[in-house]
Amino acid sequence: MASLDPGIGEKFSRPTQRAINHDGSFNVRRRGGPPIRDPYQRLILMPWGRFFLEVSVLFGVLNAAFALAYMALGLENLPGVAAPHGWVQDFLSALFFSVQTFTSVGYGHVYPGSNGTGALSSLEALAGVLTFALATGLLYGRFSRPTARILFSRAAIVSRRPDGTPCLQFRVANRRANILIELSARVIVKFTDAATKNVSYAALALERDAVSFLPLTWTLVHDLIPGSPLHGLEAADYAARAVEIIVMLKGYDDTFAQDVYARNSYIASEIIWNHRFRRAYDVDENGLAVVDLDALDATEEL
Amino acid sequence: MASLDPGIGEKFSRPTQRAINHDGSFNVRRRGGPPIRDPYQRLILMPWGRFFLEVSVLFGVLNAAFALAYMALGLENLPGVAAPHGWVQDFLSALFFSVQTFTSVGYGHVYPGSNGTGALSSLEALAGVLTFALATGLLYGRFSRPTARILFSRAAIVSRRPDGTPCLQFRVANRRANILIELSARVIVKFTDAATKNVSYAALALERDAVSFLPLTWTLVHDLIPGSPLHGLEAADYAARAVEIIVMLKGYDDTFAQDVYARNSYIASEIIWNHRFRRAYDVDENGLAVVDLDALDATEEL
Amino acid sequence: MASLDPGIGEKFSRPTQRAINHDGSFNVRRRGGPPIRDPYQRLILMPWGRFFLEVSVLFGVLNAAFALAYMALGLENLPGVAAPHGWVQDFLSALFFSVQTFTSVGYGHVYPGSNGTGALSSLEALAGVLTFALATGLLYGRFSRPTARILFSRAAIVSRRPDGTPCLQFRVANRRANILIELSARVIVKFTDAATKNVSYAALALERDAVSFLPLTWTLVHDLIPGSPLHGLEAADYAARAVEIIVMLKGYDDTFAQDVYARNSYIASEIIWNHRFRRAYDVDENGLAVVDLDALDATEEL
Amino acid sequence: MASLDPGIGEKFSRPTQRAINHDGSFNVRRRGGPPIRDPYQRLILMPWGRFFLEVSVLFGVLNAAFALAYMALGLENLPGVAAPHGWVQDFLSALFFSVQTFTSVGYGHVYPGSNGTGALSSLEALAGVLTFALATGLLYGRFSRPTARILFSRAAIVSRRPDGTPCLQFRVANRRANILIELSARVIVKFTDAATKNVSYAALALERDAVSFLPLTWTLVHDLIPGSPLHGLEAADYAARAVEIIVMLKGYDDTFAQDVYARNSYIASEIIWNHRFRRAYDVDENGLAVVDLDALDATEEL
Repeated sequence: MASLDPGIGEKFSRPTQRAINHDGSFNVRRRGGPPIRDPYQRLILMPWGRFFLEVSVLFGVLNAAFALAYMALGLENLPGVAAPHGWVQDFLSALFFSVQTFTSVGYGHVYPGSNGTGALSSLEALAGVLTFALATGLLYGRFSRPTARILFSRAAIVSRRPDGTPCLQFRVANRRANILIELSARVIVKFTDAATKNVSYAALALERDAVSFLPLTWTLVHDLIPGSPLHGLEAADYAARAVEIIVMLKGYDDTFAQDVYARNSYIASEIIWNHRFRRAYDVDENGLAVVDLDALDATEEL
Repeated sequence: MASLDPGIGEKFSRPTQRAINHDGSFNVRRRGGPPIRDPYQRLILMPWGRFFLEVSVLFGVLNAAFALAYMALGLENLPGVAAPHGWVQDFLSALFFSVQTFTSVGYGHVYPGSNGTGALSSLEALAGVLTFALATGLLYGRFSRPTARILFSRAAIVSRRPDGTPCLQFRVANRRANILIELSARVIVKFTDAATKNVSYAALALERDAVSFLPLTWTLVHDLIPGSPLHGLEAADYAARAVEIIVMLKGYDDTFAQDVYARNSYIASEIIWNHRFRRAYDVDENGLAVVDLDALDATEEL
Repeated sequence: MASLDPGIGEKFSRPTQRAINHDGSFNVRRRGGPPIRDPYQRLILMPWGRFFLEVSVLFGVLNAAFALAYMALGLENLPGVAAPHGWVQDFLSALFFSVQTFTSVGYGHVYPGSNGTGALSSLEALAGVLTFALATGLLYGRFSRPTARILFSRAAIVSRRPDGTPCLQFRVANRRANILIELSARVIVKFTDAATKNVSYAALALERDAVSFLPLTWTLVHDLIPGSPLHGLEAADYAARAVEIIVMLKGYDDTFAQDVYARNSYIASEIIWNHRFRRAYDVDENGLAVVDLDALDATEEL
Repeated sequence: MASLDPGIGEKFSRPTQRAINHDGSFNVRRRGGPPIRDPYQRLILMPWGRFFLEVSVLFGVLNAAFALAYMALGLENLPGVAAPHGWVQDFLSALFFSVQTFTSVGYGHVYPGSNGTGALSSLEALAGVLTFALATGLLYGRFSRPTARILFSRAAIVSRRPDGTPCLQFRVANRRANILIELSARVIVKFTDAATKNVSYAALALERDAVSFLPLTWTLVHDLIPGSPLHGLEAADYAARAVEIIVMLKGYDDTFAQDVYARNSYIASEIIWNHRFRRAYDVDENGLAVVDLDALDATEEL
């Protein structure tokens, strides 16, 4: 029988943490491998604060280096710089001239007065415009990256349908005002054998595994009937077998012309028993449907 | 039986407006949810007028702040500024210098004459080039966003085929000169029960649900034969059951390498009975097919 | 029976030109329709020469307008401009200052000496940097647009396989050095009834309708056996029925992460009878396969 | 029987090198064909060193040309340039002014003092900003290009499953920290007939041909059982028939919203017999899975 391992592994020497975190990341560390030199990916993925810090530091270091080079050429070749006032003042004067060149401000009260400073400032001006061309691309790359858009209910629930069928449910909604279309979902469950630590996987069939649009909320329903890998399990069994419900969603963001993928998982302690979801949308006086994202987690006892 | 709800909802406490507007948007309002801080999406989606207004206001505010900072350092440290003439004139002088630095114009008739103004103007020049790098990315993001390209006939019609079969029809055309390929369509009908306000959905089979190209017009045809959810309904029934014909189109824009999605809907009052479409294209004297977009809505009584 | 019309139309009042040209465009003209204001698409699709012309004209017009505005404020408010020398010289002086501001060169030998010119030049500097931000996005949009990459043989041939089966063949190759993968092809034939001008379509089955890679050449083969819509037709029949072989190719460009679509068609006069293709690739002394794009059309009589 | 040629060719006049190199490239040279003028592709694909070299050379040539033009107009029309000191010094002075204009630094100690130099410097300033707009687009295009992300084990192995079934295996891992999802694989084998040099292809069935995620490593397994094209072959047969195992992988990079394709091949000398892979991941004390990319190639004798 083909394994249902979604790529997370089946044999481990000790118990593992949950496979997938609520933000969709995996609990995996990597080491070794060929050294990766991909400054673009690094600069795109780092947090904004760090990005601006690195840009500022690079800007400072580059300009300091050019400032030292102008000093090496002699500040008398930068007419307009005040008479020598010691190293600190000279360095600052050269630094300000460097910044004015690098950013192409070029006030001109200080200017290159020799072939040496003329050539160096030409080089610096080219370096400056190329650096900001790079920064432009990086900023666009950071902005246009796909971002998390799907909100999952914090807990899954074990509930009953109107006809009494027990079922596992959780809900999703679109976190943003743009429209997600052609959504489809796949759900698998991960069990860990308490004794061997071996991990196994099974698919959970959904009542509906696709919707055309997600303007409101979508409740995903797996019936706990004979044939379900979770059939007959009690809350204690979920904990003992380290149940993790792994959810994979795929859709298309019409506004930005991008595929959208989302992942989440629910572990035993994140499953509420014998509750049902309260409806999270209503109709206002104008006939407009109103979805209340704060009510995505609203449940009530059966 | 699996629900055919495309994700729009089935239970409402009162009658709702049409699900989908002619521009493809949904009649949904959202509230609550975790605060979204996504200035990129906001700046990409706002109208052009508002975008340039916000950019200008930001530009003004930033430069005013820098101007005040230069004033705090003392205008005597910006040689070239005329002797003090009161706050307003001093502020304007500092503001103009600030703009010349921020945009990297740097005429130089005013220039930083102290370490303090040298450092502040260096910082402002960096802030300026990064701001315009951001603006470049935003402008490209706004431009390259997929835009509505498919034109739907304003009304659907109930017509008859040559063999007498009654059918529901509507037409689409490409609004632009670029080529749309691999188009496919899905059509569903939404009924609202007048008593319970419950909503139900049913698929409408199409004579053809895909074309390879859309150089001219495409007439989508659903036969009103036994088996159709609309079979036997009269105009009054359409109104009583709040019929909404929901259309989903998907294609590929060869010119811009983008998937293209379009949505539309026809409600009871937008269905013309016993008409037929007049052909909206012809052949000119050179054997060139000519499509007349103004004739997309042209119908005539049967 | 469902129509096989790929979206090109079946009923015309007179004979039409070929549906698809060798560059993949359609012989269709459009008129009417809601006015389209999509300067981005226009600026992306126009030829390079026209693009640079329009950019230069816009640059000239904007700067001339600003120059006139500076003149209206009085050139005495632009210190550094030579004493008045008549309208032409004054206009040129103002124009040069305007360009220096718009492009943020700002030499400073001329500078804004009043609040009016200070404010106007601030505005112009902002307009300038935003204009070039726009230009940057447009240039990238033009560059990164998918471009024609697939080379078709100029003619299709009617040939025979080694076992004697008659077949229709044509060849394609990748025009560029980058790699195309997952190519698939669809071929249909279009017939026009000489009497009624009605158009009909039929699919042509291919010996192979997909390849994983296209490093060399790919010969597409349709067997002219019973069941083929072309079975038994002679060259004269092709002309009489206005045969047009329409080819649709789809692939993926690994280098640029873009889907690639190509279209072409062969009309009766572009079909060579009783020829076969000569192999267009060979192996050099290093065991490297060598594809000769000039030999893509090389055929020899059977 | 339909050929399984993936597009690499079946008939060659002499033995060919391996079809696919370890970096996914093909051993194909192309010649002839219509001249391709696609500077964008060339500038995107060239190595970084060459890119910066070409940009610098272009920058130098353009500025030298403008410098000569300023000299032709007469340096007396560029006030601020020192009195004539011979051609070399004059050229350098003009060159520095040109660079200051092209990069929009514009110190202003030298400035255009005639209509001729005013017009030329206006033109140069426009050329400069457009050139850097181009450079910005090119840099972004270079950065955002999909890059190799999948690491293949250097060798394939012939191993045995726990139940004794002989099998061919190789392993892949994600070289980067971002997440690859929805991976699928296809493997074919290429044989070359030693006598005729004819090439044939056969598909190799995989135990699993898809995984949902690739956080750790994925071992691809082809059972060497009756029905496999490799069944019963010994190491010597692999060499004699010039076996090449061709691997095609497809996935989706969630972080950059891009499809990811990878190719590789294993030739006879890259297959290790009677070994097995050692597990390349483990669990640390925090329950975190740890993948060791250096161990991707770790095998041990059976």
